[in-house]
Amino acid sequence: MDIKRINPTVRWSDATVFNNMAHFVEIAEDTSADISGQVQQILTQAEATLALVNSNKSRILSVTIYVTDFAYLETLNAQWDVWFPEGCAPSRACVKAELVDPSYLVEMTFVAAVLS
Amino acid sequence: MDIKRINPTVRWSDATVFNNMAHFVEIAEDTSADISGQVQQILTQAEATLALVNSNKSRILSVTIYVTDFAYLETLNAQWDVWFPEGCAPSRACVKAELVDPSYLVEMTFVAAVLS
Amino acid sequence: MDIKRINPTVRWSDATVFNNMAHFVEIAEDTSADISGQVQQILTQAEATLALVNSNKSRILSVTIYVTDFAYLETLNAQWDVWFPEGCAPSRACVKAELVDPSYLVEMTFVAAVLS
Repeated sequence: MDIKRINPTVRWSDATVFNNMAHFVEIAEDTSADISGQVQQILTQAEATLALVNSNKSRILSVTIYVTDFAYLETLNAQWDVWFPEGCAPSRACVKAELVDPSYLVEMTFVAAVLS
Repeated sequence: MDIKRINPTVRWSDATVFNNMAHFVEIAEDTSADISGQVQQILTQAEATLALVNSNKSRILSVTIYVTDFAYLETLNAQWDVWFPEGCAPSRACVKAELVDPSYLVEMTFVAAVLS
Repeated sequence: MDIKRINPTVRWSDATVFNNMAHFVEIAEDTSADISGQVQQILTQAEATLALVNSNKSRILSVTIYVTDFAYLETLNAQWDVWFPEGCAPSRACVKAELVDPSYLVEMTFVAAVLS
């Protein structure tokens, strides 16, 4: 069974696919945006990544959210709650953590089911 | 291959199952309890979730423990170490992290193998 | 489908394998080493663990890096970037977190594809 990698660099791949399961991580591409903008970017980027691996936002299994300040959570949840198709929310963990660059306000790791 | 979700809300599902693997996250339901009570609840809740997805505590593959204070670790480990059937402990990571509500003392994310 | 566990103790297994996927976590065995030494140990230990589960460093799907100080990241990345075979870097998340013992400078969790 082969492994598919999306945009591999020396440091990471944008996504890996194996055994009908995809792993990927999203940080906003434009981190000058506020929390609302960064969450919107992450969700939009996730849709693009899911499309590349033959999946979509109704097939996300698990997300871990690393947020730098829980004051952002109300905004994050408001966007999150309307993003998933009805009945398709994943298992979710959410913890506070410092991220690699101070401009990153939130990072999300995803595991998704791929269409075979 | 279908995805099974346990108790999906707009924000999360209590568990997702795909490809004979379950993902779920547990926080104590009664967070007025002390660390011992919260760990006991999480382990009991995990058993209930595992039963719902046709698995059990001998089939856990991976756990990440987020604990808010390492002073809790001795208590946590004492309960953890006797909970798993002999020879069935998972891969385990444990880090310190602030959780969404100050009353949450520990959060655990699980990946488990489901009986097909 | 059976679960294979490497070196199970009452608290954890060094690795679990199910459904052609391995889960494992690495912390440097000798934590008196500096960050460069700890990263080198983790990568070397990961290769040994991968060999035990019939995988190798070209088949890692996802890594989460917990580092205690982002000042270590430049050193970590320099070793990381040359470790993976060309085109084989995984999905990667990296956050700052305190680890169980102050001597631990970095902890990494891995998901890898196993050769069937």
